Amino acid sequence: MGAKGEVTMDAFGIMNIVGLLAFAVVGSLRGSEADLDLLGVGVLGVMTALGGGVTRDLLVNATPVALRSMGDVSVALVGVALAVVLSRFGDDLTERPVVRIPDAIGLSAFATTGALVAHDAGLTAFGVVLLATVTGVGGGLISDLLLQNVPSVLVEDFYATCALLGGLAFWLLVDVGVGSQKSAVACAGIVLGLRLLAIRYDWELPTV
Amino acid sequence: MGAKGEVTMDAFGIMNIVGLLAFAVVGSLRGSEADLDLLGVGVLGVMTALGGGVTRDLLVNATPVALRSMGDVSVALVGVALAVVLSRFGDDLTERPVVRIPDAIGLSAFATTGALVAHDAGLTAFGVVLLATVTGVGGGLISDLLLQNVPSVLVEDFYATCALLGGLAFWLLVDVGVGSQKSAVACAGIVLGLRLLAIRYDWELPTV
Amino acid sequence: MGAKGEVTMDAFGIMNIVGLLAFAVVGSLRGSEADLDLLGVGVLGVMTALGGGVTRDLLVNATPVALRSMGDVSVALVGVALAVVLSRFGDDLTERPVVRIPDAIGLSAFATTGALVAHDAGLTAFGVVLLATVTGVGGGLISDLLLQNVPSVLVEDFYATCALLGGLAFWLLVDVGVGSQKSAVACAGIVLGLRLLAIRYDWELPTV
Repeated sequence: MGAKGEVTMDAFGIMNIVGLLAFAVVGSLRGSEADLDLLGVGVLGVMTALGGGVTRDLLVNATPVALRSMGDVSVALVGVALAVVLSRFGDDLTERPVVRIPDAIGLSAFATTGALVAHDAGLTAFGVVLLATVTGVGGGLISDLLLQNVPSVLVEDFYATCALLGGLAFWLLVDVGVGSQKSAVACAGIVLGLRLLAIRYDWELPTV
Repeated sequence: MGAKGEVTMDAFGIMNIVGLLAFAVVGSLRGSEADLDLLGVGVLGVMTALGGGVTRDLLVNATPVALRSMGDVSVALVGVALAVVLSRFGDDLTERPVVRIPDAIGLSAFATTGALVAHDAGLTAFGVVLLATVTGVGGGLISDLLLQNVPSVLVEDFYATCALLGGLAFWLLVDVGVGSQKSAVACAGIVLGLRLLAIRYDWELPTV
Repeated sequence: MGAKGEVTMDAFGIMNIVGLLAFAVVGSLRGSEADLDLLGVGVLGVMTALGGGVTRDLLVNATPVALRSMGDVSVALVGVALAVVLSRFGDDLTERPVVRIPDAIGLSAFATTGALVAHDAGLTAFGVVLLATVTGVGGGLISDLLLQNVPSVLVEDFYATCALLGGLAFWLLVDVGVGSQKSAVACAGIVLGLRLLAIRYDWELPTV
C-alpha cells in the first residue's frame, strides 16, 4: 500500500481510538445523568462505543469485530473510567467542545469503516450509505433507546446527515473509479468537516 | 413453474410494491406527525418499509436483500416522497382507507415472504409463524420503538394476529403436502382477508 | 463425557426448562399488567423466554436454536399459559419468591449457555462476558423496550451483574486450564448463588 497508505491507516487508527473514547464518554455521562448504577453506566458507555460497529458487522453477517479482539472494548472501558472522573467536574459536559469535537471525530471514523465494510461486502449504494450512517450513529441510537429517549439523531440537528453524506460521497467516488482507500479518506474528511461546521453554525434540517 | 406460477409471482411482486409504498407512507406520516426533521421522516419511512424484511433476513443469517439490490429502497423512497406530498392534504391519513388498504396488502405480502424464507431455511413451525409475523409487523414495530410508542401491534386490534394466522396456515398446508407456492398464495389471501375484515368490523383480541 | 458429564447435562437441561418457564411467566405477567391483549401477552412471554438466546445466536452468526427446534418455544408457551392462570390469583407476582427463584435459575442457566456458545465460537474474554450477560438479561431487556420501560437491568439492583460475574469466572477458569464443562458448572453456581444472595439481602450497586 506504500508510505502514503500506511500514514492514512495510522491516522485512521488514531481517529478510531479517539472516537471510541469519545462515544464511551458520551454514553457513560448520559447514563450517569440518568442515575444509572455503576454497571448501567459502564454498559451504556461500552454499548455507545461499540454498538454501531456491532450492528454494522451483523448486517453483513460477520461475527462482530468487538467480540473477536479486545482492542476496541479496552479503549471503551478507558472511556468509561474517564467519564466517571469527568462527571465530578461539572454538568452538561456532552454539550462542551471537549466532548463534541472528539465525538465528531468518532462519527467520521465510524461512518468511514461502515462505508468500507459495505464496499467490501459488495453492497449496493443504499447499503454503503446505510452502513456508513448506522455505524456512525448506531451506538448513540442504542443508548437513546435504552434510556427511553426519542433518538436524538431523529429529532436533532445535523448529525446523522453528516454520516449519510459521507457514505454517499464514498460511493460516488468509488463508482467513478477512485480507489476505496482514497474514497475513505474523502469520506472521513467530509463527515468531520460537515459535523464541525454543523456544531459551529448550529445547522438544522427543515421539518416537513 | 409454468404460466400459473408466473402470474402468481407477478401478483406477488405487485403486492410487495404496494406494501413497500404503503409502509413507507405510514412510517413517514408518523415521523412527520412527531415533528421529525426531513431526514428523520425519511429514515422512519424507509425503516418501516424495509425493517421487517431486514429482520427476517438477519434471523436466517442472510445479508439483507434490501442491502443487495436497489429495488426495495427505491420504492420506499418513492413512498417517502408521496407521504411528504400527502401530509399537505390533511391529518390522520394513517386512519383512512387510502392508507389502510394498501397497508393491509403490504402486511399480507410481507408475511408471505417471511413464511417462504423460513420454509426455505428449513425452520420449524414456530420459525415459520415467527418469520411471517416479524416480516409483516417488524417495520412498524421498529418505527414505534424509534418514536417511543408502545408498539401498536402489542396493544391494538387484530393486526399481527393476521400475519401469525397466515404463517400458521402456510405451515399447515405445507405440512399436509401442498406445495410452498400454493401455500404462499393461501397465506397471502388469509392475511389480507382477515385484515380487511378486522378493519371493516373493528375486531379486537380479548385482554387477559 | 462420562457419567458425571451426563448428570451435569441433565441438571443443566432442567435448569434451562425452569428458566424458560420462569422467564415466560415473568414476561407474560408484565404484559398482562400493561393491559396488552392476549396476543401481546403471549408475544411478550415468548420473547422474554427466547429473546436472550436468539440474540446470543445472532451475535455468533448462527440461525437461532429457537427457530430450529420446537422444544424451547413449547416450554415458553406452557409458561404463557401458566401466567394466564397465575394472573387470576393476585398482583405483583413477579416480586414473590415463587417467581423470583425460578427466574434466578433461568438467569443462571441462560448466562451459562451464553458463556459456552461464546467459548465454542472462539470469542475473546469480552465476548464471553458479553454473551453470558446478553443471554441472561436479553429477554427481559427486550420486554422492557417493548413496554417502554427503562430496562430494569440498567437501573435496578444486582441482576445483570450476576450474569456478568459468572461469565467472567467462566473465562478465568477456562483460561487457567479448567475444562469448559466444569467451568460451566462453576459459572451456573456463581450466577445462581449471587442472585439468590442479592434477592435475600437486597444488594445494590453504587451509582456514580
